[in-house]
Amino acid sequence: MGPPVNHSFDRSVAEGVLYTDQYQLTMAQLYHRMGLADRPSRFEHFFRRYPDYGRHQAGYCINAGAAWFADWVRSARFDDPALDHLRSHRNRAGTRLFDDSFLDYLADAGDFSSLRFEAIPEGRVVHANVPLTVVEGPLALAQLIETPLLNQLNFQTLIATKASRVVEAAQGASVLEFGMRRAPERGASAASRASLIGGAIGSSAAGLSHELGFTPSGTHAHAMVQVFMALSQGSGGDGRQGELDAFRAYANLYPDDCLLLVDTINTINSGMPNALIVFAELRAAGHEPVGIRLDSGDLAHLAVQASRMLDEAGFDDASVVLSSGLDEITIWQILNQITLEAPRYDQDATKVIGRLVYGAGTKMATSEGDPSLDGVYKLVAIDDGTGSWEPAIKLSDTPAKVINPGAKKVWRIYGGRSGRTAATADLLAQEGETLSDPLVLQHPNTEGVTRTLQAEHITEREELLEPFDPWVEVDQHEAIVEARARRVADLERFDPGVRRVVNPHGYHVSLSPESWALKQSLIKRN
Amino acid sequence: MGPPVNHSFDRSVAEGVLYTDQYQLTMAQLYHRMGLADRPSRFEHFFRRYPDYGRHQAGYCINAGAAWFADWVRSARFDDPALDHLRSHRNRAGTRLFDDSFLDYLADAGDFSSLRFEAIPEGRVVHANVPLTVVEGPLALAQLIETPLLNQLNFQTLIATKASRVVEAAQGASVLEFGMRRAPERGASAASRASLIGGAIGSSAAGLSHELGFTPSGTHAHAMVQVFMALSQGSGGDGRQGELDAFRAYANLYPDDCLLLVDTINTINSGMPNALIVFAELRAAGHEPVGIRLDSGDLAHLAVQASRMLDEAGFDDASVVLSSGLDEITIWQILNQITLEAPRYDQDATKVIGRLVYGAGTKMATSEGDPSLDGVYKLVAIDDGTGSWEPAIKLSDTPAKVINPGAKKVWRIYGGRSGRTAATADLLAQEGETLSDPLVLQHPNTEGVTRTLQAEHITEREELLEPFDPWVEVDQHEAIVEARARRVADLERFDPGVRRVVNPHGYHVSLSPESWALKQSLIKRN
Repeated sequence: MGPPVNHSFDRSVAEGVLYTDQYQLTMAQLYHRMGLADRPSRFEHFFRRYPDYGRHQAGYCINAGAAWFADWVRSARFDDPALDHLRSHRNRAGTRLFDDSFLDYLADAGDFSSLRFEAIPEGRVVHANVPLTVVEGPLALAQLIETPLLNQLNFQTLIATKASRVVEAAQGASVLEFGMRRAPERGASAASRASLIGGAIGSSAAGLSHELGFTPSGTHAHAMVQVFMALSQGSGGDGRQGELDAFRAYANLYPDDCLLLVDTINTINSGMPNALIVFAELRAAGHEPVGIRLDSGDLAHLAVQASRMLDEAGFDDASVVLSSGLDEITIWQILNQITLEAPRYDQDATKVIGRLVYGAGTKMATSEGDPSLDGVYKLVAIDDGTGSWEPAIKLSDTPAKVINPGAKKVWRIYGGRSGRTAATADLLAQEGETLSDPLVLQHPNTEGVTRTLQAEHITEREELLEPFDPWVEVDQHEAIVEARARRVADLERFDPGVRRVVNPHGYHVSLSPESWALKQSLIKRN
Repeated sequence: MGPPVNHSFDRSVAEGVLYTDQYQLTMAQLYHRMGLADRPSRFEHFFRRYPDYGRHQAGYCINAGAAWFADWVRSARFDDPALDHLRSHRNRAGTRLFDDSFLDYLADAGDFSSLRFEAIPEGRVVHANVPLTVVEGPLALAQLIETPLLNQLNFQTLIATKASRVVEAAQGASVLEFGMRRAPERGASAASRASLIGGAIGSSAAGLSHELGFTPSGTHAHAMVQVFMALSQGSGGDGRQGELDAFRAYANLYPDDCLLLVDTINTINSGMPNALIVFAELRAAGHEPVGIRLDSGDLAHLAVQASRMLDEAGFDDASVVLSSGLDEITIWQILNQITLEAPRYDQDATKVIGRLVYGAGTKMATSEGDPSLDGVYKLVAIDDGTGSWEPAIKLSDTPAKVINPGAKKVWRIYGGRSGRTAATADLLAQEGETLSDPLVLQHPNTEGVTRTLQAEHITEREELLEPFDPWVEVDQHEAIVEARARRVADLERFDPGVRRVVNPHGYHVSLSPESWALKQSLIKRN
């Protein structure tokens, strides 16, 4: 039975309180040694650039991940398995890297409950350089939580953003998430959840959907047709007979949920004719078919043809589900092609498009084109030892990478001149700063580039950051439902140019006069 | 404290036996209804195309994921939480989708122990269209396991492949995996493990590394320097004094592990001079520094300058760790630039390069450029009801997507004419087929395109698939150590052209005469 097992793998330990980068631990011990471990500190989480998929780019992101990050925070404990691992770590000289005094400190802290959080709620439209999450509390613990926070919030925001783009491209049609088989291993679950926040109506992930209170989606794959083809061959029949047998068996078992995959052999010559035979039998038995699915070939062309065949056979209400390689660009191109091609076959393009449903898989679940969000987590202030914030800066040769220091509030400014109101800028002000009237919006990096908004052109000033308490358990289903509603409401309040799938309009994220002055003074001091 | 929580989220349920696509469950119930649930069947897992990163492409993959997939198989149970979820699923007519008879079948099966597996071992070099994993057993269970198998094996193979390329580009220098913060949420753990298989010498992931018996890597981040900068400001000092204070504190706490990040303010004017002060103090106290890390700017240029400054100060053995945006192409370009640029500063390029260590993060952990492997899982044969295999096929308008039917063995053929032996082709033969002499290798899709190998030019015929029993628990540390050794040994036995980072030579994957004849006969029949 093989050699003795010295190392089994316990995921709950690997992904518990030590689900962090090693250097967070070495820094935390240093803070402890220097008497700084409990020094109040403030870190902000933000991303610097929108996902750029190569030939197309995001002009906004959809914030996501907080409810699951909260689950992690509540469960993470400096328990014996974690402390034993740290105790076992030997440095290059062969002695212990982490001393008992530090391990005692962690054991006494116990968990992350001494940290205080603010966050922009899940589902909201968010922009580059705006603090999405704020962590305040003891320096050592706020440092340790950096990696798990980034790991969990970056990825869900990345995928919710991609899903939102796919859903916008679908122009009101339903989008289902099908990505698990090629999604990044256990990241698949987060991808499914984030897709739901981004606007997908359901997911194929069975266990995850049930746990989150959604009904998982799915009918059958090519394999089922292959099974009946092989058995038909064995008894002297051909593949087409096997496909018909498979469709019949499926319709018989699922008469009210009959959606048939028609491209195992040949969509037009075999799959569609077989499906229509079974649909007619189904109707004769008192049931209506749901529709057909196309998973290969020229999806736009086949959708027009399948739609025509369904109509001619009297199944005007049957859906046409498309899958295989879908993202915002392929959906956009499919819609274009149908618009051009349907009239050539005397089909109403609007009707063809109106029956489409999209199954988006790999490209959505991996954010193909840009598979990471560059979210960072930066110290912006630390207690100077007397209870006052000392602002902190991180310099860079690249002006856009110099952080905006100080404890900040985020305001979304809405304005409008023609009756309709839209978000016009996010403003990073200092805590306690009174917003000026007229409101001055300073470019974050370029001196003298400002916009001035008169009060009569401002319809609303909304604070985006809210208190976020990971220790309050939320209903996981409701969290998604609410996040979806926030996304829909927010998108309505942004200019269509910001939502454009290709080359979107750049939304303004500005500094207040105090934020600008503080940043300049710290740059000059260093 | 908020509304009552009806839906909490239990990851162990979501990622347990229902960690699969919904359609696997509807198909499994159909097989059960048709009396086919226990029909012996054979599925093969393979990928169709190597990762293509845009301007560069993989010519081989590194197989990975089996030991963790085995952990999942052993733990997956058709237990009450799973069956309760299925029982709760309502179809469109409002009645139960899954009936008691099917749920009883699953409960009786209990788990996946009735399946038999074969696999190519982890760490081995593998190629497109070659079965990497074979699953044989009851049709319903072999169908249900498709999605979790693909989810876990596709991703680790993807990342092990990317890591192998990064490690090859590093030309013998050490590569560390740093990707957790932007890796795909919990997929980060699989990415770290796969990176170790692909040749990374360590990972920054603390918990994961300890669980797998590796020492996690990491020193400090910009944040630590920022803390001391802010505190120095508060007491009237400047940022550079703060950086020096930070370095001193670090060296004092970790005298034998002193690796300093020098780019928080300015690498050449502040970080390096401060580091050299501290290194001199360290040496005076009887310790040698480990080195410095560069995380921004022109890494090649700064590496030359940092190397020069280290040498001039007498720290010839100090390492220069590079990080920030590294992948196989950036490393290749950094090495080129150093080779050109070092002589201009009277530096020996070989010496500069010889002290480099690479921290590869986001791009490696997400396989940037191609974030998914297109692995599929296809039915290749099913028992005809009399104990004989009936081969199964999946047709396609694209010849390369027509699967290779039948129960197969995979042979790797080694040959050589000039003393040196190398892998020349992988051959898909039918089980029980006697390999011909001379050996005929048929192109998988094009009639008449063959290679014939005389026996005297064949040095070895190696079977790649081995029995794989997920129920035998393996030592998780040893599994990685052995996989790494297999990768190193395999790469030695492939032509450098196959390993080329850009536009690699296409390795031959061929059909045996029986495999070709079977495929043609099934295509003609359908």
